[in-house]
Amino acid sequence: MLDDLKQRVCDANKRLVDEGLVMMTFGNVSGIDRDGGHVVIKPSGVAYDDLRPETMVVVSVADGETVEGDARPSSDTPTHLELYRAFDAIGGVVHTHSVHATAWAQARRPIPRLGTTHADHFSGPVPCTRPLTPQEIEADYEANTGKVLVEALGETDPLASPAALVVSHGPFAWGRDPNEAVTHAAILEYVARLATETVRIEPYPRPAADELMDKHFNRKHGPNAYYGQADEGETNR
Amino acid sequence: MLDDLKQRVCDANKRLVDEGLVMMTFGNVSGIDRDGGHVVIKPSGVAYDDLRPETMVVVSVADGETVEGDARPSSDTPTHLELYRAFDAIGGVVHTHSVHATAWAQARRPIPRLGTTHADHFSGPVPCTRPLTPQEIEADYEANTGKVLVEALGETDPLASPAALVVSHGPFAWGRDPNEAVTHAAILEYVARLATETVRIEPYPRPAADELMDKHFNRKHGPNAYYGQADEGETNR
Amino acid sequence: MLDDLKQRVCDANKRLVDEGLVMMTFGNVSGIDRDGGHVVIKPSGVAYDDLRPETMVVVSVADGETVEGDARPSSDTPTHLELYRAFDAIGGVVHTHSVHATAWAQARRPIPRLGTTHADHFSGPVPCTRPLTPQEIEADYEANTGKVLVEALGETDPLASPAALVVSHGPFAWGRDPNEAVTHAAILEYVARLATETVRIEPYPRPAADELMDKHFNRKHGPNAYYGQADEGETNR
Amino acid sequence: MLDDLKQRVCDANKRLVDEGLVMMTFGNVSGIDRDGGHVVIKPSGVAYDDLRPETMVVVSVADGETVEGDARPSSDTPTHLELYRAFDAIGGVVHTHSVHATAWAQARRPIPRLGTTHADHFSGPVPCTRPLTPQEIEADYEANTGKVLVEALGETDPLASPAALVVSHGPFAWGRDPNEAVTHAAILEYVARLATETVRIEPYPRPAADELMDKHFNRKHGPNAYYGQADEGETNR
Repeated sequence: MLDDLKQRVCDANKRLVDEGLVMMTFGNVSGIDRDGGHVVIKPSGVAYDDLRPETMVVVSVADGETVEGDARPSSDTPTHLELYRAFDAIGGVVHTHSVHATAWAQARRPIPRLGTTHADHFSGPVPCTRPLTPQEIEADYEANTGKVLVEALGETDPLASPAALVVSHGPFAWGRDPNEAVTHAAILEYVARLATETVRIEPYPRPAADELMDKHFNRKHGPNAYYGQADEGETNR
Repeated sequence: MLDDLKQRVCDANKRLVDEGLVMMTFGNVSGIDRDGGHVVIKPSGVAYDDLRPETMVVVSVADGETVEGDARPSSDTPTHLELYRAFDAIGGVVHTHSVHATAWAQARRPIPRLGTTHADHFSGPVPCTRPLTPQEIEADYEANTGKVLVEALGETDPLASPAALVVSHGPFAWGRDPNEAVTHAAILEYVARLATETVRIEPYPRPAADELMDKHFNRKHGPNAYYGQADEGETNR
Repeated sequence: MLDDLKQRVCDANKRLVDEGLVMMTFGNVSGIDRDGGHVVIKPSGVAYDDLRPETMVVVSVADGETVEGDARPSSDTPTHLELYRAFDAIGGVVHTHSVHATAWAQARRPIPRLGTTHADHFSGPVPCTRPLTPQEIEADYEANTGKVLVEALGETDPLASPAALVVSHGPFAWGRDPNEAVTHAAILEYVARLATETVRIEPYPRPAADELMDKHFNRKHGPNAYYGQADEGETNR
Repeated sequence: MLDDLKQRVCDANKRLVDEGLVMMTFGNVSGIDRDGGHVVIKPSGVAYDDLRPETMVVVSVADGETVEGDARPSSDTPTHLELYRAFDAIGGVVHTHSVHATAWAQARRPIPRLGTTHADHFSGPVPCTRPLTPQEIEADYEANTGKVLVEALGETDPLASPAALVVSHGPFAWGRDPNEAVTHAAILEYVARLATETVRIEPYPRPAADELMDKHFNRKHGPNAYYGQADEGETNR
């Protein structure tokens, strides 16, 4: 079942390597079949080179139980499931420990809107979650990680802010499908790197003007968007 | 029409990838046909691998209207046109979000003359524009971006200072032709990186001595230049 | 003798290059044959490309004398031997001057637990040795380097903390075999890089919560580990 | 004439690219024929890919006049000649604008001895020249650059300190032959990078203990050196 989605999830996982977002096995991508109520996700701890569509694991969105596949699903599966449950519009989720986004998570800071590269893709600062409580860490840790991500987004449209940082951990990103989720993870990493390079020069930079940031977001994603070609799908909403 | 210029603009856009100056579709190059009053520019939001000479867009310098091509021109086209209108000597313009030059733009600071690598190519600090006003952002944003660039250059010869930073945005560079514009964008990125690495070591470095900076600029670009071979064209004036 | 171990030590040395952990000849890997009391190690100052299994040097664990091989063993051999003598559970040792781990050693600071990437692999901060005394430098320098490493580990299980920094020098890492030692050296370098990128943003970051760090270490390495597949051997204990 | 030296100087120039030490044409290597009183050097402003042994330029050590070759020699030729005149033991000189060494030159600071990687190759801090006076810049600038380099070395054995920084400019390195000069330029860049990464973590790091630094230099280069193989020639004296 779900052969096409398995292929796309497998491809998206391998693309993590091409985009320079992972080392060792530190990252995973999933995709959802909303009609069937299933999520396809990378098996835990398997090297990207060894991934095949048929080794992807299928789990139930309702209870997280494995429906198909011989291997254990990624240990981060409950986090992915919380995101799918909270955000109806998303079709793919990715988690990495990419260098620059992870550094902002370790610094415990949201990524401020310092320029138009950021504003072209994110409607506001990239949020950073609150720390989990000891109780949230002790039991249902991975599901609680998903819950603080959802909490950090608040009322924001998840497709207008397609990534967030888990404090002291690393980034999650999402999109309308698995491939777009990886694109957003790659853009997040670039935006995080730009922010780091900026604070190297000016340790406490003023955020860019709101008018400029909103202009850039809206010229790509607003109702009167005029960036790109009329029929293209690469924007994030 | 303009087959040769389309080829050169297409090649210069692809060279952005080879020089490590762009990720995704964040950058564009144009070239001008002064006699015909036309500018050839990259279509908006198209991947560099998919660019072909025949997919380049031709616009009128006079009014910015598309003269030839099926795709929308780069959304930054009005910025390019302002630069061509103000600077008669230039034949190519490039815009990127390259990491280090963009970081200086996000830090809202001109790049100071810290060494001879800088002075070999730029007659003074690389200027950074003032912020646009809310009114300038609201209407004719891209054309106004060009106007503040021209304002930032002031009386400086644009070929002696072949790049500038748009504050909270990123770099524009130019040259006598599209290929030279990309060369200047690549050198700008290297000079910006050197400046960033310097402020990592010494947060507030003194600029280099004016005599040394002028010596280097003039030995390459002055009337008695003695760098390079007599017949070469790689210098910037 | 020891043909299989020579092959694995040779391969592990060459892998240092693939992992980007060495430049020139600045690094070496060894492996131990506990039954025979022999250590196989890289010859000193030989380029990685020129290494062959048969050029590996065999030394006695008991007295460090060369048992087989025409070349001098790595000048760091006595350090490796001290580690094998102190830590019964290890089967491979690696020393590099990799950029980020070496920078922490030069900064004279242990690498703090700033995030889950660190906690997934190390049970606590990565220790940094005390400086050697002038007497320890003067005589038996390389063996004394091993002794301060062992001292820095203290009561910690070496497989739960599979690397440490020699102050003003660089990292040593170890594992159950030569290949795993290199894996740990590569992960250490990534963790060190993440820590450096974090202090760029936040010069004095708070370490991550102990509960979170312990959770991550134990979900991979504790008695109820649930990361990876049940039969895999890539974890560090 | 000098076919063998031209080949080696040409190869050493091309190696600058492989070692990641140059971009565009920002670097040059020369070699000396002490018996004939000739220096072979890269032509000015020529791309590395286009270099051929027969396009190398031969100049007289005595007066700097071109003896053979159709192209202008590197504009830095008078600097090379001053180094050859002052340091009898050297056979090759290299100049680059490599990122990290240039950043230290732009920060106007010698590279301190922060660790054993440095001490393995340089007997003390890597010196940085004083600024040239306006008079020294005005006339005979390139020769005066060589003179302040020689002044910065002082009484130090040039083969025990095979590189120095020209303030606000960049590094020069040298060795017993052109290839070894490039090796030293590559090691200098690595040592400079390590120093930069260290000051990122600890802005004002204490230099490493003199006893440790001297131990490392002498175990590779002292009369009782025991690093490497007995017959090898890769050490710097």
